[in-house]
Amino acid sequence: MTSRPGGRSARVREAVLDAVYAELIHRGYLGMTVENVADRAGVHKTTVYRRWGTVDVLIADALDHTRETDWPVPDTGTIEGDLTAIATEIADTFTDPERRQVPAAIVAAALQSTRALQAKQAFYTARHTEAAKVVTRAVERGELPPQTDPLELVRLTCAPLYYRIFVSGEPVDRTTAERAVQSALAAARTGLL
Amino acid sequence: MTSRPGGRSARVREAVLDAVYAELIHRGYLGMTVENVADRAGVHKTTVYRRWGTVDVLIADALDHTRETDWPVPDTGTIEGDLTAIATEIADTFTDPERRQVPAAIVAAALQSTRALQAKQAFYTARHTEAAKVVTRAVERGELPPQTDPLELVRLTCAPLYYRIFVSGEPVDRTTAERAVQSALAAARTGLL
Repeated sequence: MTSRPGGRSARVREAVLDAVYAELIHRGYLGMTVENVADRAGVHKTTVYRRWGTVDVLIADALDHTRETDWPVPDTGTIEGDLTAIATEIADTFTDPERRQVPAAIVAAALQSTRALQAKQAFYTARHTEAAKVVTRAVERGELPPQTDPLELVRLTCAPLYYRIFVSGEPVDRTTAERAVQSALAAARTGLL
Repeated sequence: MTSRPGGRSARVREAVLDAVYAELIHRGYLGMTVENVADRAGVHKTTVYRRWGTVDVLIADALDHTRETDWPVPDTGTIEGDLTAIATEIADTFTDPERRQVPAAIVAAALQSTRALQAKQAFYTARHTEAAKVVTRAVERGELPPQTDPLELVRLTCAPLYYRIFVSGEPVDRTTAERAVQSALAAARTGLL
């Protein structure tokens, strides 16, 4: 009946989760409904209700799906270059009024739904682990003290950007991204992490 | 008719906003309703609906009210002591299952309502400005380089805690608070901020 791996169920999931991201970008978290996601995916809305139930579960499953896909770990040759690539990706996402809808919806959903909270935690655990590779390589190259905690340096690089976005409500740009990298590296170079 | 300053309208606001915090601690953001706030405040629900309208506006007004009240700026005699007091206050709030409901609701409301977003930004602008005094005093004491940006050191101190709470979903405690202070101070001491 089908030549695609996973069959009809996997195809439906793929179509629905693509529609989740498209709807988030198009309407934002508050404007998103199960019906609109079903319409955009070309799937009957009762199918979507039965399988996912709510917008928050749709967002959680979309995030699980994204977590399972590869994220290209930067490899510029220097820790400063790699962390700048990571921080710049965050800053660029949040300066784009459409793309920023996705992480904003994830944080909002996680504050309303345990399922979404778990998906968010699993997502960031996975991405931290991936991103930590740039620190491990830097330690191997002798760029950073051997005891540096890779996860902590990743957190310190990202934290000032997310703090502005979700807490203080201040803008982020490439300058704030570079500043976050320099501050995190300064702490790492003292051997503190 | 009344001996209290501000009169009846101010008394109603005070009672309602106290009830907002009590309801947040008791039921959390998702369980909070305008009716429950009115009941707890002993105010007719139509009065609350007419003046505030939604839960998000109630939360925003409660935050405005808190912003207007004094926050005791730490003054321990050292920058490390002052920043540790600030970071510990954040960590202690978020390790308390009841008290953590308040900032979580503020972040959630700000993702859903422009009025709440503006209240949140005004709140953090005010608190950053207050907290920055500890850095200014440290610079005057010669503890930190003269060019240190007070606001940036405050942000760097708070950011790793809020990042764990709202983004990665990792726990915070006094150890993570102290680690955040040490990392922020390391960056400041290099003259980078």
